[in-house]
Amino acid sequence: MLLMEQTWPDVRAYLERCRTIIIPLGSVEQHGLALPLGTDAFIAQAMAQEAGRRTQRLVAPILAPGMSLYVHMDFPGTISFMPDTYTAMIRDCVASLHRHGFRNFLLVNGHGGNEGCIQNAMAEMGYRLPGMKYTWAQWWRMPEINAREDEVGLGRVGHGGGSEAALIMHVRSGLVKSELFGRDMKEARFRTSQDLVRTHVTETGIIDAQQERATAEIGAELFELTVTRLTAMLADLESPA
Amino acid sequence: MLLMEQTWPDVRAYLERCRTIIIPLGSVEQHGLALPLGTDAFIAQAMAQEAGRRTQRLVAPILAPGMSLYVHMDFPGTISFMPDTYTAMIRDCVASLHRHGFRNFLLVNGHGGNEGCIQNAMAEMGYRLPGMKYTWAQWWRMPEINAREDEVGLGRVGHGGGSEAALIMHVRSGLVKSELFGRDMKEARFRTSQDLVRTHVTETGIIDAQQERATAEIGAELFELTVTRLTAMLADLESPA
Amino acid sequence: MLLMEQTWPDVRAYLERCRTIIIPLGSVEQHGLALPLGTDAFIAQAMAQEAGRRTQRLVAPILAPGMSLYVHMDFPGTISFMPDTYTAMIRDCVASLHRHGFRNFLLVNGHGGNEGCIQNAMAEMGYRLPGMKYTWAQWWRMPEINAREDEVGLGRVGHGGGSEAALIMHVRSGLVKSELFGRDMKEARFRTSQDLVRTHVTETGIIDAQQERATAEIGAELFELTVTRLTAMLADLESPA
Amino acid sequence: MLLMEQTWPDVRAYLERCRTIIIPLGSVEQHGLALPLGTDAFIAQAMAQEAGRRTQRLVAPILAPGMSLYVHMDFPGTISFMPDTYTAMIRDCVASLHRHGFRNFLLVNGHGGNEGCIQNAMAEMGYRLPGMKYTWAQWWRMPEINAREDEVGLGRVGHGGGSEAALIMHVRSGLVKSELFGRDMKEARFRTSQDLVRTHVTETGIIDAQQERATAEIGAELFELTVTRLTAMLADLESPA
Amino acid sequence: MLLMEQTWPDVRAYLERCRTIIIPLGSVEQHGLALPLGTDAFIAQAMAQEAGRRTQRLVAPILAPGMSLYVHMDFPGTISFMPDTYTAMIRDCVASLHRHGFRNFLLVNGHGGNEGCIQNAMAEMGYRLPGMKYTWAQWWRMPEINAREDEVGLGRVGHGGGSEAALIMHVRSGLVKSELFGRDMKEARFRTSQDLVRTHVTETGIIDAQQERATAEIGAELFELTVTRLTAMLADLESPA
Amino acid sequence: MLLMEQTWPDVRAYLERCRTIIIPLGSVEQHGLALPLGTDAFIAQAMAQEAGRRTQRLVAPILAPGMSLYVHMDFPGTISFMPDTYTAMIRDCVASLHRHGFRNFLLVNGHGGNEGCIQNAMAEMGYRLPGMKYTWAQWWRMPEINAREDEVGLGRVGHGGGSEAALIMHVRSGLVKSELFGRDMKEARFRTSQDLVRTHVTETGIIDAQQERATAEIGAELFELTVTRLTAMLADLESPA
Repeated sequence: MLLMEQTWPDVRAYLERCRTIIIPLGSVEQHGLALPLGTDAFIAQAMAQEAGRRTQRLVAPILAPGMSLYVHMDFPGTISFMPDTYTAMIRDCVASLHRHGFRNFLLVNGHGGNEGCIQNAMAEMGYRLPGMKYTWAQWWRMPEINAREDEVGLGRVGHGGGSEAALIMHVRSGLVKSELFGRDMKEARFRTSQDLVRTHVTETGIIDAQQERATAEIGAELFELTVTRLTAMLADLESPA
Repeated sequence: MLLMEQTWPDVRAYLERCRTIIIPLGSVEQHGLALPLGTDAFIAQAMAQEAGRRTQRLVAPILAPGMSLYVHMDFPGTISFMPDTYTAMIRDCVASLHRHGFRNFLLVNGHGGNEGCIQNAMAEMGYRLPGMKYTWAQWWRMPEINAREDEVGLGRVGHGGGSEAALIMHVRSGLVKSELFGRDMKEARFRTSQDLVRTHVTETGIIDAQQERATAEIGAELFELTVTRLTAMLADLESPA
Repeated sequence: MLLMEQTWPDVRAYLERCRTIIIPLGSVEQHGLALPLGTDAFIAQAMAQEAGRRTQRLVAPILAPGMSLYVHMDFPGTISFMPDTYTAMIRDCVASLHRHGFRNFLLVNGHGGNEGCIQNAMAEMGYRLPGMKYTWAQWWRMPEINAREDEVGLGRVGHGGGSEAALIMHVRSGLVKSELFGRDMKEARFRTSQDLVRTHVTETGIIDAQQERATAEIGAELFELTVTRLTAMLADLESPA
Repeated sequence: MLLMEQTWPDVRAYLERCRTIIIPLGSVEQHGLALPLGTDAFIAQAMAQEAGRRTQRLVAPILAPGMSLYVHMDFPGTISFMPDTYTAMIRDCVASLHRHGFRNFLLVNGHGGNEGCIQNAMAEMGYRLPGMKYTWAQWWRMPEINAREDEVGLGRVGHGGGSEAALIMHVRSGLVKSELFGRDMKEARFRTSQDLVRTHVTETGIIDAQQERATAEIGAELFELTVTRLTAMLADLESPA
Repeated sequence: MLLMEQTWPDVRAYLERCRTIIIPLGSVEQHGLALPLGTDAFIAQAMAQEAGRRTQRLVAPILAPGMSLYVHMDFPGTISFMPDTYTAMIRDCVASLHRHGFRNFLLVNGHGGNEGCIQNAMAEMGYRLPGMKYTWAQWWRMPEINAREDEVGLGRVGHGGGSEAALIMHVRSGLVKSELFGRDMKEARFRTSQDLVRTHVTETGIIDAQQERATAEIGAELFELTVTRLTAMLADLESPA
Repeated sequence: MLLMEQTWPDVRAYLERCRTIIIPLGSVEQHGLALPLGTDAFIAQAMAQEAGRRTQRLVAPILAPGMSLYVHMDFPGTISFMPDTYTAMIRDCVASLHRHGFRNFLLVNGHGGNEGCIQNAMAEMGYRLPGMKYTWAQWWRMPEINAREDEVGLGRVGHGGGSEAALIMHVRSGLVKSELFGRDMKEARFRTSQDLVRTHVTETGIIDAQQERATAEIGAELFELTVTRLTAMLADLESPA
């Protein structure tokens, strides 16, 4: 149910039965020696697409690259929009869809750096556009994901960590160089911050992360947990207020 | 140690021994029937000021109002900057201070709606300005605060909830109308979201909150926990990388 | 009558009887060896607050820092918003208040560098928002102030000059280092301009100014003259068109 | 050779031998009853990807949706960025890549509405960033394409016309509803303009177009002509100035 | 019929009979050794003015300088607005006129670098403002101009070429230093692009151009061809849709 | 000495002897029943041009329309840039000229509504660009003008008042409908403000003004006084700091 694969009369027909759309958001950002630059985008896209398939809900084109103005910019290949640009992108995309009659927005975000832009864009759209409802999901903040991470000893997400590795192994296995897992995994040293500080990162680009325990099987589990949650969120979003 | 109360030669002298500044951020936003519009700002200001006093670190002028483009705008008196404006304010403030030689920035945020702007502004400044380190603190996300909230049965923060009420009772007791605590505390109905949705709020403006158990004593405790944490963050921020 | 100290039902009640708000604007800017960085803000805040107290009119939170992209930026501690930022701040603040029903706006500006932003922001708001009236006051442009300055030989304002010194001595006497008055008071050399030119300023930061004759008593006089004028402006602003 | 499928060490290695990148640009815009909303994006992506494959040159993630603030917005499903947003997107993307060392940029545009944004963004980047060379290609403006269109009687492009239909039949045949070709093909009435005027369009969304003669075979021909041209442009772009 | 020479009651009277306005756009940009910086502006202004005179249609003030962020900026005297600025200028000008009741806009552009800004500004205005029609003309893209250029052997336009020289000789003959025609006319070397690349230009600033055959007589012919076309475009623009 | 009439080698030669430029700024704004919309622009242009002629200094193209978001927008024909747009225009123009080596900027402003934009743009440019000096002139604020106004009983400027009428009679006499002077000259009623308030204006558009005493002779006098002053300002601007 990708919007881009529909004709406009298809969308007109869809809007007669349903006013919901799923918007995936990703990044194009270094993920260490073993994972591709598109990791966040591939994962978010796959999750959104599977949730859309199961619920017969439309999926908008992914907004990627994302906002990556962190240490990641020092690694070749990372592309970042400025925060104002990415915020405007989300706003414009939502405003276009709202104009056609979409009212329920589920954003599926694959990249922590996008959070500020999402918050700002959606607050402004919720303020300006009448009658809309929205929510957003980030797999690494879901309690069921965190519980499973703890059980299998993956550790929490960091950057380019075990869970991400597992998910991308499930979603796009051919792109993972698992033989490079765990090389040079020095820890970042700066600790007080909720944020990244420029001079504190391992040489590989990985932060606070353990990749060695990642497997495609665990990735499939985390993926299923997330899609299940997304499905529930869609139902909630569409329930009468 | 308020920057605004210094002369410029005072600041020049300060910079010879220390390159750290504390920046409080607040809001001007409805907080229900009992708490003043400046609740977030008063709390953040007091925390920043006390941390500055103990560590002899300068405190910049508070950035308030903040970003409040939510249901709060439907309640008289709420003032919100647009997200782009508030983001630019943080950027400009940090850039001015960086120009004078400040390099370590501790942001003390009193309002959840500001998070996106802080993330976006600081990511951009960290990217553009050489040699800076920053971190930011939000009392309601500190584990020691959450632990104490659980112990005394305050519940987590919501909006205008028990912890906020306790803190403002400690900081500016004269402004609290505690006789109005808890009136008309209907729950918000929309549940999937990390975000607020416009049509779901109690008539008082309070969300998911219990104010009745708030006391100035508990406020003093939470305040002390936060300031202790801020002091540690400052030390960490100033330690060699 | 500070807005930030009210609850939202207080503001709702206020709006039933009155649609006027006073907005102070200041700066965080060097004022020479003897006066604090917050001089303009402290003065504007005190004037607005006293006018509000006498007339029982609400006072919005001060917009400070202000726009100080002049030589002042070469002195440690000066914080400036970019002109576009400060203009947007005024616009957003006025738009929020207009949304709640405020219609009469009295801006009390304490800093000459803010004038362009005030003019631009208010012109745009006057153009976009229906039914609003506004005016703005700057004490150093009031004829009665200028007359008194001439009588007591204070000279016109310059930057950090005698009148400002007198006013801050009245408003926040503890912050003034009067023993440093007048040191190194070389004149600025560039003369044709209504504007400041970067390379022309004394080493102290003071421009065209005489501080030595400033006293708290003269400050009290100038303060009273200004507040009286503000009170009259409020009455005029609220009179039927 | 998709950038998103590489790791950052892959890109570092690539940059040692080559400083060229291909950037596809598309749209999400109604294309009549028979063609999908993603038509422009699918075509540009396929062309860029095939040119990259033949020359072993990297392809950046596609920038889609594009700028479609025309009559197309009246048809459900069209998503448009504002012109300022899309211009900033191109700028940010190019600036990120330039930072890593990319110097030769080939933009492959699939959507006429993007032209203004491309021109503006690339002019500014060419002005600000040292040492860069760029060029951009639009298949419908290539003389060899126009010659072939004339030979096979497809007519020039219009919107959603025969050439686009042929190309998308070649690239993503499963998405074309060729049984709906040509229905209700009334002509647009307004004629002086190089531009679209809002009230002048057929009911299907198709403008000045003949779809009936489109076949996948002609699409394959046009595709091959374009990719051959792109390959030559890449060689030219990399030749010493 | 220059708008600037009318009083507001003149314009009110005009709007009762006609809702059309002509807007010329130019540049202030180097045009080689022989032609003045204002070449594009003088030509567009004269064309617009003559079309206005013949049809009794109002002509708005010219928008010049234009967008010239190309190699031209390396030649003293070129003034360029940033693309975002020039786009906003066109938007604001059209919005002001639309507010007064103008509905038919003919833009007469004298400078290729402005095209992106015109496209972006007019697309956005067409999207936002109800009931407007617009079209834009560029003499060097008119088939009748190109045909005449071929007949007299002037070659196509390049930058500062024969046609421009001829037109400015017709319009402002006193400003042309025809004795410098053709000096140092080395060709630009970079050929794949529709665009200019910074390091590829002759030392005179002229690109791909032959000035030697320019005469005021040919200029008069091209001018007449253009004005005739503009007159037809005005009639078309005002015809019922 | 109009910049637009020079070739780039002319400007290169000029810069070898002088780094000064004069920039006129105007408006396109209603000036009552008798004066043309371009009044401010024609006056500023003529003053700048005459000062340039006498001193052999270059004059940049006028920036007009200006910022007129006041009651004037309710009168047909007024064109206003938004404040942010006009500020950016001044910035871009100055930055282009600074790039070529201009360092001394004299702005000759003909329209009070532009003041905020000038202040903001020049403060930012003075802050960002090294080595520049600037000043700006407004004839209606010059003491010698005010003295002469008092002597001949013209009254101070208002909007479209006697001095403006006299000046435009001197500069472009053919455009003045002096037979309409003074019709319907009701006073504006709102009095506290330094600013205009939307609902307070006469029906003619004239504010606080007396046109009847205006003559071309007085206009010539005021014109001469202004140009003399401009000449002195240029000398001062070019004197060593």
